[in-house]
Amino acid sequence: MITIRDVARAAGVSVATVSRVLNQSNVVSQETREAVMRAVDSMGYRPNANAQALASQVSDTIGVVVMDVSDPFFGALVKAVDTVAQRLNKHVLINNSYHQAEKERHAIEVLIRQRCNALIVHAKALCDAELADFMAQIPGMVLVNRLLPGYAHRCVFLDNVSGALMATRMLQQQGHQRIGYLNSVHGIEDAEQRRTGWRQALKEQGKAPPESWVANGEPDLQGGEAAMVELLSRNLHLTAVFAYNDSMAAGALTALKDNGIAVPQQVSVIGFDDIPISRYTDPQLTTVRYPVVSMAKIATELAIKGAAGELDPQAEHGFMPTLVRRHSVAPRQSVAPVTNPSDLAM
Amino acid sequence: MITIRDVARAAGVSVATVSRVLNQSNVVSQETREAVMRAVDSMGYRPNANAQALASQVSDTIGVVVMDVSDPFFGALVKAVDTVAQRLNKHVLINNSYHQAEKERHAIEVLIRQRCNALIVHAKALCDAELADFMAQIPGMVLVNRLLPGYAHRCVFLDNVSGALMATRMLQQQGHQRIGYLNSVHGIEDAEQRRTGWRQALKEQGKAPPESWVANGEPDLQGGEAAMVELLSRNLHLTAVFAYNDSMAAGALTALKDNGIAVPQQVSVIGFDDIPISRYTDPQLTTVRYPVVSMAKIATELAIKGAAGELDPQAEHGFMPTLVRRHSVAPRQSVAPVTNPSDLAM
Repeated sequence: MITIRDVARAAGVSVATVSRVLNQSNVVSQETREAVMRAVDSMGYRPNANAQALASQVSDTIGVVVMDVSDPFFGALVKAVDTVAQRLNKHVLINNSYHQAEKERHAIEVLIRQRCNALIVHAKALCDAELADFMAQIPGMVLVNRLLPGYAHRCVFLDNVSGALMATRMLQQQGHQRIGYLNSVHGIEDAEQRRTGWRQALKEQGKAPPESWVANGEPDLQGGEAAMVELLSRNLHLTAVFAYNDSMAAGALTALKDNGIAVPQQVSVIGFDDIPISRYTDPQLTTVRYPVVSMAKIATELAIKGAAGELDPQAEHGFMPTLVRRHSVAPRQSVAPVTNPSDLAM
Repeated sequence: MITIRDVARAAGVSVATVSRVLNQSNVVSQETREAVMRAVDSMGYRPNANAQALASQVSDTIGVVVMDVSDPFFGALVKAVDTVAQRLNKHVLINNSYHQAEKERHAIEVLIRQRCNALIVHAKALCDAELADFMAQIPGMVLVNRLLPGYAHRCVFLDNVSGALMATRMLQQQGHQRIGYLNSVHGIEDAEQRRTGWRQALKEQGKAPPESWVANGEPDLQGGEAAMVELLSRNLHLTAVFAYNDSMAAGALTALKDNGIAVPQQVSVIGFDDIPISRYTDPQLTTVRYPVVSMAKIATELAIKGAAGELDPQAEHGFMPTLVRRHSVAPRQSVAPVTNPSDLAM
């Protein structure tokens, strides 16, 4: 690696002079400046971002912590942050944290040490107190998909319970009563809140659903497929399923098809998030829209404002989900096709 | 932001003393060490990664440049790099470059300035000469999905032409002759190479396909859907389609279904890459496997070895694609269903 010392030696000047030239100081003669720049160019020297950041104590890097960029929801989130960053000539440093407390802490600390002055953080495993400590230290840190008491003006979040209520009530309006839930094995509050909404809608219509109506899987295609197979194997005569997210719902569609069960004629399926794939499943997925792109853009703008000390402490950034009607939900048939008449008990 | 000066002031010692404590030097008394650590803890001071990197001239960051992390192929690539990085207690800095020369250059320069000593780069827009300059400067830089003359031992790449030949010949073995190509509008060599393989297979069987058998779209679901609609509107009596990637193939499945054309009974579809979604389309997608996870892991290991000066200059890392047979390809029917007998001319 070429250092500033190598450049100074080649140009026959001091390190301080090279530094002055690179920092566009005016106290250097034209001749010296040209000699230094010739050496810089011929040696391929690159000023060190670490040194520049040290000098200014800020960097032009926006940090992002997400669960996993290869998950389509988080891919969309990161891309939305990147869109804002590009407009502002900043670059984005991304860390995956896999919903694990230790990795979330490490990811945030790495970004702080890199002197990111704007941080967009999706953290689900860290407790409120630890996140509050980070928030107190870093005025440009904003949370996505979490409401942290005391920092509401720096949180961009969605009402997950309402989204799940909305999805389940839509199924109920189509005559469905026996509605399963495909739950994420990631024990984060989103999964709990969506389950709460589903449960509440069912309770409002009669009685609480039994535990057996919930099957767990990874929040991806394969996890949804496995959870749906598990639900089918329990012979519960469900006529509809609400999935934790669209990936799980898409996996469930495959499991249903493989078992010769027509969607939506025999079983209705509704997802959550409205990721792009939901328009390309067969049938196209009815779902609850999580406006992650808008939310990530707002979070990025808030983080940049926060770093500049320009945030409105009274503002709130809670979002409501909306229902997207496509083709995976239909009215319940009079006799559920997977019902075995001798086995009507739950 | 708390600085080392603040800590020194609070502990009643010099900045140099704080630095010695933080760098575990032994020339500090136990008493002074404890006073400094009390101040560090109570003020929440974090040592600056930039300063640490400056001192050692390396960082524990692996840099990755990809087209777009929200594309499933690149999401898988980044995740594979991250898997290796985590095992080695390194973290990953990701930059998107959108197949644009200026963004590719900027992304690489940002990572170099961050003193990443291992770089995994997917660059398609930069010319060989410019990439060779970067490779000469950064011994820990490795290219994925590109063979750069003179740096073969630091390139992990796939034979795209063979993959496309394989896909097209498989369709031909099923009796298909009129085979369209859904091309990516990203004018990168992959698209050109896959098109070359498709064209070559068709030429071997008779004559070169006309330009009208190619339709262009973004290399995603929506782009594949649009390109397939465009091909259908040309009334070409195609009985099979080879797509640039699985996302485009999945989009094409939707377009075909929306037009009442059964896959594979009426039209066969084959993709490229074998991303996870290809097992969850309806029908499941027959495709050519791009072993991106293995390749990204090898690239990461090579980059780390390169940074340590331990690379074998004679090694080569070219991969061959393999065919994955699922359910979107079937033998050609005796009469193509979308054929209009009065319009058999191309």
